[in-house]
Amino acid sequence: MKVAIVFGGVSFEHEISIVSSIAMKDVLKEELIYLFLDASRDMYHIPTDIIKSKLFSSGDYKKFEKVYFQKGGFYKKGGLFAKEKSIDFDVVLNLSHGGDGEDGILSSVLDFYSIPFIAPRTEACVISSNKFLTKGYASSVEVNTLDYKYFTKGDEVVVETFPVILKPVKLGSSIGVSIVKSQEELEYALDVAYEFDDAIIIEPFISGVKEYNLAGTKVNGEFKFSIIEEPQKTEFLDFDKKYLDFSRTSKAKEVDLGEKLNNEIKESFKRLYNNLFEGSIIRCDFFVVNDKVYLNEINSIPGSMANYLFEDFSTLFKEVANNLPRKKHIPINYEYVNKIQASKGK
Amino acid sequence: MKVAIVFGGVSFEHEISIVSSIAMKDVLKEELIYLFLDASRDMYHIPTDIIKSKLFSSGDYKKFEKVYFQKGGFYKKGGLFAKEKSIDFDVVLNLSHGGDGEDGILSSVLDFYSIPFIAPRTEACVISSNKFLTKGYASSVEVNTLDYKYFTKGDEVVVETFPVILKPVKLGSSIGVSIVKSQEELEYALDVAYEFDDAIIIEPFISGVKEYNLAGTKVNGEFKFSIIEEPQKTEFLDFDKKYLDFSRTSKAKEVDLGEKLNNEIKESFKRLYNNLFEGSIIRCDFFVVNDKVYLNEINSIPGSMANYLFEDFSTLFKEVANNLPRKKHIPINYEYVNKIQASKGK
Repeated sequence: MKVAIVFGGVSFEHEISIVSSIAMKDVLKEELIYLFLDASRDMYHIPTDIIKSKLFSSGDYKKFEKVYFQKGGFYKKGGLFAKEKSIDFDVVLNLSHGGDGEDGILSSVLDFYSIPFIAPRTEACVISSNKFLTKGYASSVEVNTLDYKYFTKGDEVVVETFPVILKPVKLGSSIGVSIVKSQEELEYALDVAYEFDDAIIIEPFISGVKEYNLAGTKVNGEFKFSIIEEPQKTEFLDFDKKYLDFSRTSKAKEVDLGEKLNNEIKESFKRLYNNLFEGSIIRCDFFVVNDKVYLNEINSIPGSMANYLFEDFSTLFKEVANNLPRKKHIPINYEYVNKIQASKGK
Repeated sequence: MKVAIVFGGVSFEHEISIVSSIAMKDVLKEELIYLFLDASRDMYHIPTDIIKSKLFSSGDYKKFEKVYFQKGGFYKKGGLFAKEKSIDFDVVLNLSHGGDGEDGILSSVLDFYSIPFIAPRTEACVISSNKFLTKGYASSVEVNTLDYKYFTKGDEVVVETFPVILKPVKLGSSIGVSIVKSQEELEYALDVAYEFDDAIIIEPFISGVKEYNLAGTKVNGEFKFSIIEEPQKTEFLDFDKKYLDFSRTSKAKEVDLGEKLNNEIKESFKRLYNNLFEGSIIRCDFFVVNDKVYLNEINSIPGSMANYLFEDFSTLFKEVANNLPRKKHIPINYEYVNKIQASKGK
């Protein structure tokens, strides 16, 4: 199978996407084709055998051929007298973390051009990339989340009990997130968060809260789960640590929370996944507080695809690629226009 | 101002989009450029002076020049030795009703290519085009909706009290919607709805419920509202009636519900619009039951842009076009890649 990895893009996690994509060389057994979206959304075909992060920071990627979207895939322009060349691939893996990849822009573009891809479809991207919308969605599918307040720029923000955690609604990887311990720290934290987004949420900060990660997907109506991991964290993962985390390829250590909690985490995952996330492999991060499971966040394109949580990621990946969701056929037959024409006697 | 109307697309409301777009000739005073997306998402430039619905039903639109997306706009391919030609325009009006236009696909594509456009951005499209997500969102911003139950294909559906109204979650214009008066009618209604979508919602059907429509937008932080209209309806608008409704250009009649309800409707609109719907002119349809306001649905791209509800639509349109939301700048500077390179001593 030939897998075209589309990565980079306009995102605060642009660099993370590069690291995550290069890690796929050690994870997937398929033939990989690397398509890089730069900061201007120009797309380049980077040869798989020489890809490395320095190519991007140096700007050397611009030496390679430019690639454009077309119906069903991608093409490179020909020279004078030369025809356009199509890129040969079977499926796209959208590995653009953060903006573009995770906010629905890239999934929509892939959908628009009828390109088969592994990633959440547009709706699932929108729900999981916006913490405010995630809260509303989780509540609709009866999955607990921590209490929160939602504010947009200009709103008066009153916090009654500290500490709280303050997050821009739309970023991942802890960018713009602050733990606020007192009224004095609040204004600065607001300034930081509003630099990245016009909307924020504030949640109680529970020191030492246990977090558990579960990745999974659905193939032919059947859920396939990873192990549950308790990630090693300090207060919360800062960008540097998360950056390294995105290149993980060695297997994680399973944690056993007992049958009741293990099940509760899996049932919550199922309710969140169904059916919005079809076609994707996602990682859900849960808190457990007083034996109750709360969703923290949905990683719709987890770092290095959370490969390290699965026994046999490569086989799972292939199964997902071979069972992508199909769009309902929408017939367009001009029944009404014809009716009007007929009634006009034309 | 040159307005490029992008219409058609893969949608059950493809035909409605054609009618709605042609109606714009009587509504907007700007220079119009018509870009038609056909059932295969091939795009054609239709000359404004000869556009009519028959061009599309007959397939004659294929005689015109093909158009492609490019960074900042659209281009037509040149012939041998001829260069590509860009299309000259100032702003796009996304008038593709239903799928593509309203589900976030087209807004994402426009965003991806950095094309300025009037329509909800991707997030707002997703929320308003999916009735289940609309319910969750309305609840998050403290706007009432009628009680509902959500089902996906294969779920057991038990209805306790008839009549109910059964709707596919993702279609507009009453397609696939049934009023179900008894257990006997339920199975057929489910079959109809599941033909269009894999997920449905069921609400109590309130016979003779009053519906009120309010359109509006926000320009420079200030809300601009239309009049409130009580649309003339039978049980619910079927597709034929809605089809004619989408070509409305004559002014609607204002209804006065008294200060309290007028305000409640406007305040609900504001909470729904903020800030997700920036850059768009939307119409919200409300029910009033026992003096309480409930959101029925958000029309993110209303038929003929709900022009008939506004005193001076043409001026409003221009104001929106001149005040489109700006995306936050996302710096991409390879700080982390450089750090890693440096620590490797390379």
